[in-house]
Parts: sequence; structure tokens; C-alpha cells
Amino acid sequence: MPEPAPLGEFDRIRRHFRPLTANSPGALDLTDDAALLAPSAGHELVVTVDALVESVHFRPEDPPDLVARKMLRVNLSDLAAMGARPLGYVMTTALPLRCGEDWLAAFAAGLATDQAEFAVGLLGGDSVATPGPITLSLTAFGEVPAGAAIRRNGARAGDTVFVTGTIGDGALGLLAPTGRLDFLDEEHRRFLADRYLLPRPRCAVGPALRGIAHAMLDVSDGLLGDLGHITEGSGAAAEIDRDRVPLSPAAGAAVAHDPALWDVVLGGGDDYELLFTASGPVPPMIAGVPVTSIGRVVAGSGVRVLDGSGRSLTVAASGYRHF
Amino acid sequence: MPEPAPLGEFDRIRRHFRPLTANSPGALDLTDDAALLAPSAGHELVVTVDALVESVHFRPEDPPDLVARKMLRVNLSDLAAMGARPLGYVMTTALPLRCGEDWLAAFAAGLATDQAEFAVGLLGGDSVATPGPITLSLTAFGEVPAGAAIRRNGARAGDTVFVTGTIGDGALGLLAPTGRLDFLDEEHRRFLADRYLLPRPRCAVGPALRGIAHAMLDVSDGLLGDLGHITEGSGAAAEIDRDRVPLSPAAGAAVAHDPALWDVVLGGGDDYELLFTASGPVPPMIAGVPVTSIGRVVAGSGVRVLDGSGRSLTVAASGYRHF
Repeated sequence: MPEPAPLGEFDRIRRHFRPLTANSPGALDLTDDAALLAPSAGHELVVTVDALVESVHFRPEDPPDLVARKMLRVNLSDLAAMGARPLGYVMTTALPLRCGEDWLAAFAAGLATDQAEFAVGLLGGDSVATPGPITLSLTAFGEVPAGAAIRRNGARAGDTVFVTGTIGDGALGLLAPTGRLDFLDEEHRRFLADRYLLPRPRCAVGPALRGIAHAMLDVSDGLLGDLGHITEGSGAAAEIDRDRVPLSPAAGAAVAHDPALWDVVLGGGDDYELLFTASGPVPPMIAGVPVTSIGRVVAGSGVRVLDGSGRSLTVAASGYRHF
Repeated sequence: MPEPAPLGEFDRIRRHFRPLTANSPGALDLTDDAALLAPSAGHELVVTVDALVESVHFRPEDPPDLVARKMLRVNLSDLAAMGARPLGYVMTTALPLRCGEDWLAAFAAGLATDQAEFAVGLLGGDSVATPGPITLSLTAFGEVPAGAAIRRNGARAGDTVFVTGTIGDGALGLLAPTGRLDFLDEEHRRFLADRYLLPRPRCAVGPALRGIAHAMLDVSDGLLGDLGHITEGSGAAAEIDRDRVPLSPAAGAAVAHDPALWDVVLGGGDDYELLFTASGPVPPMIAGVPVTSIGRVVAGSGVRVLDGSGRSLTVAASGYRHF
């Protein structure tokens, strides 16, 4: 049925979203039925898409600019995980009436901030009204040289397992408002909460790992769950040395005080670091981001976590689904 | 926060959606973080995106297979309007718990039907739960030879205005359940209702008009509203001869009995026919679809509707927003 768009919906879009297309000639100023996008010669496009629902994927009280930035960053992280350089994105917003001018302005400002940081632009979109919760969908585009995309099924027994950055900050950050981390310094708690709200997609690291990583993905379901995706897809097993999993000072303080939080660190999600396997040498730092070897790919199936003596540890399965 | 996905969400997706990727090698079996898509050499991608919300864009009682097909077809129509050949699509589904296996199966079956009819395939997607209404988003991809996309801003004074197919069926079809068309034969009412529920995107006509059409779009906001988009974008005006607007037998019977319905025919939306301007000769039939000249582009601004004697007619503005 015809959409009961509030009068001036087109004007709202124009005011808030058209500036986001300033560096995207293919957006055609949002005046046409579609946008144009051409990968570089010899390249193919990498396409990823995510939906976010208020009260499911973000909290109603989360600031709109951070919701926007997280939505964009989560998709940029997926592109990085394929080894792709980001190009741009389209999005749909289904917004309840209570999302007024202030909400839209903050949401668009968040996108503008991250467009500048990651050199991407809005290509097009659709904005509709909804009687339900805020529902967002974003389709992001990147490019890789044809045939160079890094998939998750290429791990081989003998590979080393690597991660970028630090693990567990996002999942611990989600706990920060619950009081479970009240034993931590305020500074550490704030660090973790921020890492949950605003992932750091490794956009420069992913493309640098083309030709090096045999299998890669970004850690969104949790380190163990996502490593399980790699081993399952590759027909192999993996062993992780828990003591080599890189932790931020805040996460280190958390597990030192409450070792039960290791389950959150290893099993929780929202890290958005890159997890990959490789057989050759890998630099300890790529594009300013530390890269740490945490284990190895072996024959068999499943993922095992070992302590400093090589004994198998049990990790509670709450945060992930594939074991 | 971690998504409270019902147990087996991945399995549900696999069962219902993975078969839709059978002819899309770039979907990577839905196992990776992203899909791959390469336009043909010398071509650029055309990207369009739409969001649909239950109770806003479709009725809760609409069959899921028809909702799916309409969602896909509306996007294919946007690609046709740019002169693009369709390639594939990604989608997100935000579904309430009440959408069970039967709903998903019917929804996927609708997509499968139209994938076969229009030679496109699913490339990827994201499926999430929502406490709100069914909310769908679809991003469709097509391709055109680089630089050959047909935009809406190329109309010139002296051009002839053309439409494909017939106009007004969709908007009249939306009225069918209200009783306002009860004077029509049952067969005519059913025809109109069906045209509302299931648009016919002109996928073969659009690409055939490359090099012929100066400006083009698909009629979704209504003939006059969309022609207004063309004249506004092109800095020109247009005159339509109302008696030359092609009508189906059902729409013809409707306006013959109730001339007030002309406002619905000319101002209502959901035609999904192609509206374009051209200066040279245009075949009266393209890819099996009739093409009718209905007016001309002139200097000035705005859109006028003329009767058989060249007198200006007033059309109620309810169905469109740009006048």
C-alpha cells in the first residue's frame, strides 16, 4: 500500500543523508532509482550486509551516532575479513516517528565521522516509517583483486593461528553496565564499555594479509566460535594456548581478579579483530596493529583450549553456538 | 548486545535460503563474511535498495510468497529503469517469532519462483529476530556498459514521453478490497488486485532502451509524480494527453464508470512500468511489451494533463507529492 510517509520525508533524507554522498559520484546525488559502482580493473566486488534491530542489537539508550558508527564498522570489519578494501555502502532505515530531526542529525553525524575515518561514502538508501523498533540494514561494498578474497575454508594442518589486537574487550564491555566489573578501575571499565560500543575494524590489516592468510574471518561470534567456523569450513582442528591470547590491560585485570571471566573473553563476541591462519612468517605489527600467534591448526576437528602445561581447559559454551 | 537468536537460526537460514544461492557461485554457499560479485568487463554495477515494513508496505494478511516476490520485483524494476541487466541480490529479514517454518518456506518459495523467472540469485543476507513488525530490506545488483546507465535528468524539450504497458492498474488494485470498485466485473477486479500484489518489472525493456531513452524511471510514485521527477531533474516541463494514456480493459472500465478514478490512475503509484523520453523513433513493442507515446517534453516547468481538445485538466494531488 502507499507508504504513509510524513510530509517532507524526501526533504529529511536530502538534508541529513545527501551530504554523506559528497564523495560518492556513483550516488548520483540520491536523485535516481539506483547508484553506480565500478570496481577497479581486475578487481571483484565484496558485498556484506547486516541488519540491526533496536533492543536486540543495540540498546534504546545507545546514542544514535554510536549506533550508526557501529553498524558501519561491523560491516567494514566483514570486508576486512575477506581482505577487501572498502568502497562504499547503501543502507535502509526503518524509523518510528519518535526519531525526529535530532535523532537523524546525530545518526548522520556518526556516519560522517566514520566515512572520513575509513574513506567510504554513502551510495544510496531507502528511508521508511515503522510502527516498530528502529530497524537498520546496511550493505557495504569493498574490492579485492579478482580471486584474492580470503575465505574461511583455507586453513591447513600446520598453520599457525593469529589474531589482531586484543580479545574479549567487547564482550567484557557489554558486562560493564551490569555491575559485574565493578571491581575494576573506572578507567578500565570505561575502556571496555567503549570497545563494545565502538568496534575498531581492521580495514588496513585485512588487505595486507592477501597472499599470507590461508583462512580469515573477523571475531564477531567469539574467538572460539569463530575459530570453529574456520576449522569446520577447512576440515581441520585447532589448539589455542590460552596464555598467549592477547588481552588489553583492562581485560587482563578482569580475568586476574575473576578467572571465570575467561569464558567471556574466549566465548563472547563483538571483538571485531581479525582471526586468521598462515604458514609463513607474519609481521608482529601490521598497519599499526599488533598481530599475535595464539595456537595452531592440527588434524581432526573442533577447537581445544590449552593451559600453560598443555592441558585442555573447559570453556563455558554460552557465548557461542557451534560446539 | 549478543543477539538472542532462537536455537537453530543458522539451520533455518541454511534450509530455506541456501538453496536460493544455487546459481550464485559468488554467494560462497553463505559460509563466509561476504559475497563476491564481478560485473562483466567494461560494465559498471547498478545498485538499488528498498525496505519494506509489514502494515506499512504490505498487509499482514498478504501471502509471504507474494510479499517476497513484490520485494524482489520492485527492486528489479529500479534496475530496469536505469537500463541495467539484473545480476543478483542480498537481503535482510527481521522477523518476529510468529514467522515460523511455514512462513519462511513460503517466503523462500516466492523468491525461488522469481529468481527463475528473472534469472537472478541470492548472494547473501542477514536474518535477525525482531519484537516488531516484519521488516525486510533488499539490495539488488545489475550491470550496464560503463557510462550507459539511463538517468532521470536527460529529458529535453522536443522529446516524446513514452510509457510501457498500462497505467493505473496497481493503484486501482489497491482499491479493490475497499469496495469502491464493486461495480466492476469480478474478473476485472481480480486483474487489478493481482497487478497491485505482483508488479511486472520490465527487465528486458530497460536494457533495450539504452541509447534511445534520454531520461527514464519506473512509475512507482504515480505517473504524474514520476514524470515530475523527470521534468524537475531535467529542467523542463511536460504535457500529457490523457486520452493517450494506455489503460487495461479493467482500468478502462473503471474510469468509464467513475471518471473520478482518473485521479487514481494518473496520480496513484505502484505501476512499475517504465516512463521515458526519447527524440527518435521508438518501436511500438519491445520485448513483448507495448510502448505508447503519451505526450511531450516542452520548455518550462511542471507537468500538465490535457484533454482531447488540448485543455488543461486538474488532477487531485493525493497520490503524489511533488506538485
